[in-house]
Amino acid sequence: MSDTHSLDALVQALKRLPGVGVKSAQRMAFHLLQHDRPAAQALARALQQATEHVHHCERCHTFTEAQICATCLDERRDHSQLCVVETPADQSALERTGAYRGLYFVLMGKLSPLDGIGPNDLGFKKLFDRACDGVVQEVILATNFTAEGEATAHVISEGLKARGLKPTRLARGVPVGSELEYVDLGTIAHALVDRR
Amino acid sequence: MSDTHSLDALVQALKRLPGVGVKSAQRMAFHLLQHDRPAAQALARALQQATEHVHHCERCHTFTEAQICATCLDERRDHSQLCVVETPADQSALERTGAYRGLYFVLMGKLSPLDGIGPNDLGFKKLFDRACDGVVQEVILATNFTAEGEATAHVISEGLKARGLKPTRLARGVPVGSELEYVDLGTIAHALVDRR
Ligand SMILES: [Zn+2]
Ligand SMILES: [Zn+2]
Repeated sequence: MSDTHSLDALVQALKRLPGVGVKSAQRMAFHLLQHDRPAAQALARALQQATEHVHHCERCHTFTEAQICATCLDERRDHSQLCVVETPADQSALERTGAYRGLYFVLMGKLSPLDGIGPNDLGFKKLFDRACDGVVQEVILATNFTAEGEATAHVISEGLKARGLKPTRLARGVPVGSELEYVDLGTIAHALVDRR
Repeated sequence: MSDTHSLDALVQALKRLPGVGVKSAQRMAFHLLQHDRPAAQALARALQQATEHVHHCERCHTFTEAQICATCLDERRDHSQLCVVETPADQSALERTGAYRGLYFVLMGKLSPLDGIGPNDLGFKKLFDRACDGVVQEVILATNFTAEGEATAHVISEGLKARGLKPTRLARGVPVGSELEYVDLGTIAHALVDRR
């Protein structure tokens, strides 16, 4: 056991964070131990608390400390609308718009065959059951407009159509505030097709 | 207390890591809680262990779990040479060359007036005492070749000269394996001045 065992172990543990290589991990460990030990202790406690208390909402799959999350329990929301998003961060982005008052289904990921993530990992069965529960009138697909997000939306859409439902998809188009000259051509083409 | 209090606290704690903004912190928290809870628990333990056990070597200031680090205690090393570096990472880089067998003094930082880091924070007094202990014959300044690293080396150099010692500095020059055409002009100019 070397006299820097704890430091080496800390660098290794920090390296397991996404996007953190050995150089960043060393820089983080140095910063925490040299300049901000309270931050190290706060992070240790936060990790402990979160792994202990955070699990998935039984209804929408998002992270929550309750059995059913506050959003799903909110009676003031429109329970006839169900918006399908990839992650809690996407859900937050939609919430911040203030333009949506329905409920959510959070996939906690996207279809990604290369990473071995298929329909079962994303709870499609539960989503389909929920969509057919008689309360839900409209399913809005708000997965990302990336190749994987589009593929995920497509597969969900096919599943819902097979059950006689017709989901909607967020509109593709020119971002607000942008000049056409600087918008990529694929986006302009989509905005033409989806013109109102 | 919201039903995502632990998650919010985790994102806040991750944001205190250097180079981590709110988006990265959210991505890290999502990854840990959704895909790698063992990594979260390992990191919590590593932070706890490191803050508890890692402190500074009494002789060279580097991180160690012992009172005096293994390098300082190593009798096979040349105790007449003292190499001054900014961080343990710089010390590791020098060690990996295999070209140095003396001892180190690790400043654990660099002079940085804007951040309020002065000579007292870097233990210059202790360094000067050590350099004058009769055992040390040569002090090699190996701070970085940045503006702050050069300023740090300059101040240490002046302090040592005032005590009748003449420190050496790592040579500036063209990196091994590089073509002159692609080396910046300041480096070539220094390599000319420092030519052997
Ligand atoms: Zn929920
Ligand atoms: Zn030491």
